[in-house]
Amino acid sequence: MALPHPHPHPEDHLTSSAMLQDIVIGLSDGLTVPFALAAGLSGAVQSSALVITAGLAEIVAGSIAMGLGGYLAGRTEVEHYEAELAREYREVREVPDVERAEVRDLLAEIGLSEATRELAVQELTADPEQWVKFMMKYELGLEKPDPRQAPKSAATISLAYAAGGLIPLSAYFFTATPSQGLLWSALITLVCLLIFGYLKSRLTGQPPVAGALKMAGIGALAAGAAFFVARLISE
Amino acid sequence: MALPHPHPHPEDHLTSSAMLQDIVIGLSDGLTVPFALAAGLSGAVQSSALVITAGLAEIVAGSIAMGLGGYLAGRTEVEHYEAELAREYREVREVPDVERAEVRDLLAEIGLSEATRELAVQELTADPEQWVKFMMKYELGLEKPDPRQAPKSAATISLAYAAGGLIPLSAYFFTATPSQGLLWSALITLVCLLIFGYLKSRLTGQPPVAGALKMAGIGALAAGAAFFVARLISE
Repeated sequence: MALPHPHPHPEDHLTSSAMLQDIVIGLSDGLTVPFALAAGLSGAVQSSALVITAGLAEIVAGSIAMGLGGYLAGRTEVEHYEAELAREYREVREVPDVERAEVRDLLAEIGLSEATRELAVQELTADPEQWVKFMMKYELGLEKPDPRQAPKSAATISLAYAAGGLIPLSAYFFTATPSQGLLWSALITLVCLLIFGYLKSRLTGQPPVAGALKMAGIGALAAGAAFFVARLISE
Repeated sequence: MALPHPHPHPEDHLTSSAMLQDIVIGLSDGLTVPFALAAGLSGAVQSSALVITAGLAEIVAGSIAMGLGGYLAGRTEVEHYEAELAREYREVREVPDVERAEVRDLLAEIGLSEATRELAVQELTADPEQWVKFMMKYELGLEKPDPRQAPKSAATISLAYAAGGLIPLSAYFFTATPSQGLLWSALITLVCLLIFGYLKSRLTGQPPVAGALKMAGIGALAAGAAFFVARLISE
C-alpha cells in the first residue's frame, strides 16, 4: 500500500519517515492475512496445532516475500535512477538541442513568456550538472534514492509483518479448540486493527475514525471470506 | 512493491501502464506466498485436502486484503491530492508573499539568476490557476490522480493475486499425496516465476535474466523457510 508523499511544509503537516511507512506496510498486511488464514482454517479443522502450523508457515512465507520484495524494489529504484542519470548526461552532451527544447517546453507549461523562457533556458543549461539535475527532477520526476534504504526497508517490513502476524495467532496458543481460538483472535485483532487504523490515519492526515473502521473492515471481510471458503470445501 | 515511474520518452523507453503494474504486483505476491504456504504445510500434514483448504483460504484472504488495501490507498491518494490543492489555493490567496518566496526559492535552486527569477515569478504568479498548478507539481511533487483508478486497481490486483495463487495450488489437485503435490507445485511455480521475473524485468528496463533468477530465488527461499518451520513445529 502506497502512502502519500511526505510534505515539505515541516511546520504544520505531519510527515512520516520512511521507517514508519515501512512499519505501516508490514503491520497492515501482517495483522490482516495471517488472521484471516487462521480464521478460515478454524472453520475447517479440529486441531489448534494445525492452525498454528499453517499460521506460522504463512508468517514466515509472507515476511520473506515482502521483505525480499521490498529490498529488490529498492535496489531496482536505485539502478533505475542511475541509468536515467547516465542517460540524461549522455543526451545533454550528444543532443543538446533536443534537451534544450525539452527545457523550453517545461518552462512554457508553467506559464513563462517567450522572452523569459529564453533567458531561463540559457542560464539553466549553462552548467551541465545543473541542467541534468533539472531534467531528473522536473522532466522525469525522479528524486535520488538512498542506496542504504533498501536493506533497512526490507528488514523493517519483514519484522513488522511477523510481529503483526503473531498477534492474531497468539490466541490459538492459549485456547483449547480452534473455535475458541478464533473468538479470541478476532477480538484481539479487531481491537489492534482499530487502534492501528486510527494511528495510521492520524499520521497521514486522514480522518482517524474512518481510518480505524476501514482497517477493521478489511480484516473482518478477509477473515469472513476465508472462513466461508474453507468451511465450504471441507464439508 | 513499487515500480519505477513510467518515463515520458515514449519512443525508446518501455513504459508500463497502471494496469500492467497492478498485474505485476498481484502476480508477484500471488505466485510466492500461497506457493510457500502450501509447501510449508506439505512438510507437516498428510492430507492434500488440508493443503488445498489452507491454500484457498490464504488466496481468498490475501486477494481481499491486497485488493481492498489497494483500493483504499488509491482513495487516500485522491483525498490527499484534493486536500493539498485546496490548501494551495488558500495559501495563494491568504499568504501570497510566502508562496511567492517559495516559487523564488524553487527557481533559485534550478540555477536562475536573480533578474530572470523575478521576471519568472511575476509571470508565473499572474494567474492563480497556473500558480497553484506549479506549486502542486514542483513544490509538492504531486500529480493529479485519476479517481476511477482506485476501484480498477483493486479489482486487477485481487484477480492477479488469485490467478497467481491458483497456479502453485493446482498441483495438489492432481496428485495423491502432499509430497507429490509439493514436487509438482515447486516445478510449475519456479518455471512461472522465472518467466514472470524475466518479463517483468524486460518491462521495467532491467536485466531480464537477473530478474528471472531473483523472482525464482524469493519464491524458493520463502517456500524453503516455510517448509522448515512447519516441519519443525509439527514434530
